[in-house]
Amino acid sequence: MSLLVVGSVAFDAIETPFGKTDKIVGGAATYISIASSYFTKNVNLIAVVGGDFPKSDIKMLEDHGINTKGLQIKESEKTFFWSGKYHNDMNSRDTLVTELNVLGDFDPVVPESYQDCEYLMLGNLAPKVQSTLIKRLKKRPKLIVMDTMNFWMDIALDDLKETLGLVDVLSINDEEARQLSKEYSLVKAAKKIMAMGPKVLVIKKGEHGALLFNNEQVFFAPALPLEEVFDPTGAGDTFAGGFIGYIASTGDTSFENMKRAIIYGSGLASFCVEKFGVERIVNLSDKELEERIQDFVDLVQFEIQFE
Amino acid sequence: MSLLVVGSVAFDAIETPFGKTDKIVGGAATYISIASSYFTKNVNLIAVVGGDFPKSDIKMLEDHGINTKGLQIKESEKTFFWSGKYHNDMNSRDTLVTELNVLGDFDPVVPESYQDCEYLMLGNLAPKVQSTLIKRLKKRPKLIVMDTMNFWMDIALDDLKETLGLVDVLSINDEEARQLSKEYSLVKAAKKIMAMGPKVLVIKKGEHGALLFNNEQVFFAPALPLEEVFDPTGAGDTFAGGFIGYIASTGDTSFENMKRAIIYGSGLASFCVEKFGVERIVNLSDKELEERIQDFVDLVQFEIQFE
Repeated sequence: MSLLVVGSVAFDAIETPFGKTDKIVGGAATYISIASSYFTKNVNLIAVVGGDFPKSDIKMLEDHGINTKGLQIKESEKTFFWSGKYHNDMNSRDTLVTELNVLGDFDPVVPESYQDCEYLMLGNLAPKVQSTLIKRLKKRPKLIVMDTMNFWMDIALDDLKETLGLVDVLSINDEEARQLSKEYSLVKAAKKIMAMGPKVLVIKKGEHGALLFNNEQVFFAPALPLEEVFDPTGAGDTFAGGFIGYIASTGDTSFENMKRAIIYGSGLASFCVEKFGVERIVNLSDKELEERIQDFVDLVQFEIQFE
Repeated sequence: MSLLVVGSVAFDAIETPFGKTDKIVGGAATYISIASSYFTKNVNLIAVVGGDFPKSDIKMLEDHGINTKGLQIKESEKTFFWSGKYHNDMNSRDTLVTELNVLGDFDPVVPESYQDCEYLMLGNLAPKVQSTLIKRLKKRPKLIVMDTMNFWMDIALDDLKETLGLVDVLSINDEEARQLSKEYSLVKAAKKIMAMGPKVLVIKKGEHGALLFNNEQVFFAPALPLEEVFDPTGAGDTFAGGFIGYIASTGDTSFENMKRAIIYGSGLASFCVEKFGVERIVNLSDKELEERIQDFVDLVQFEIQFE
């Protein structure tokens, strides 16, 4: 089934306690589309880069079967650039540089051949750009998943709330859920946020796993306990890409299937953090992925029978 | 199978964002023995209280089938007293008062009728008292589980390390695991701590669940996402009591059975936090407990089949 991914394709420069990188390829849509490509070969990308973006990285995306017809290249401008430094606990980071560049006036044009996409993943972007994209689709996709972040809650809350009314699934982290709902309890936060529009909410808790809520049910997926988190950049986007990719590949939007999708997303994210940037997720074998998913099964599986 | 529980029986005064209590019954051994009594009717308590400890609270323990022959009553002295105030997030607290009283020179005497106990749960106490108790048992129990806290790592690390060499299972929280091992990664921390003696390690992560490690395996049990945590006091001890009580009732110390024990411990702990002190766990019905365990099954259960 066809998947449309919208979001940033960017340069990142990352510093962690384990080392630092020069400008490497990053951006929400990069992680999402690579991760989803492990499940569905019909991934269609909408993003914008500058003339400085390497052709080799575009080819890398295409080698994953990702359709780049919707990737705008503004030859005379520069690609979005983010630089950050992680603290020793790897759970918090400082942003050192944010250069919006081409992303500042990103106008998400939908190629005609993308119009029939059944699944839409809105990577983190200005909520106004996300809602514009939805409105430009002639037919509403079967499922719209949206990721966002605290930054937009600070500066564009009204736009964010409007976009929330248009989507089926929202993916945010625990602190963002608390900020958006003004509730500390994640159970209370989930209820308030689902009342804003999304029928399903995914709350990402980093090393503490992820929660999946709908009106009646809740599911918890752990994160894999790792010896080392080398670089957390992109883990949330990789998670979202695995989630929507698995759903698109199965064509099943039931809660039961979303549980499996959360586990696949968590599995891919657990690879992502093992190396800088996309390095670890560009060449995963089916066997590696299957073994990792089995690790998740083993991690939480128990048998209790009531008498 | 018979279970021996050693630890504090105390008075607590608790303040949370939801209210405050006068002196109420508390103490690690109180929570542990009540929780374990839901699984095994052969619970033997060793602890010490002062003459100020109400007979009605001793009767409450006995009504749970707990043998109080080993509960020393020092008529002319006062019971251990702790007072604390929780912050708004309920994850951190300030200790307002600690009066050791009878606990200051606690000499854990083992009644002859306790000598054949097959399971031993060492609640949080000075590590020297914990090791003394072990040495006073004529026959080593089949399984020794120990709980401790950061306080003893600060002031009695050598004693703590000696006691660690005598036990099978250690139960501590994530920050304590990091302090004891000097490793941030819980996977690395677990390896270092198991090298100190315990073959099995339980790391409690509060609202983020618990991890169970042995040399080859790891299991993760979530905490139940709750609308409100009313009072976290005793949740870790209740968890430990459910864990050892379930193991003692089944007589099975395999890793597979410890997984189930962790789920039962988590289930009981999820009740504990719903009211002040032991209020919520003194009168649980079998039906309530079974429904709560089913909530845990539903929370993490998913089905993935590889092709």
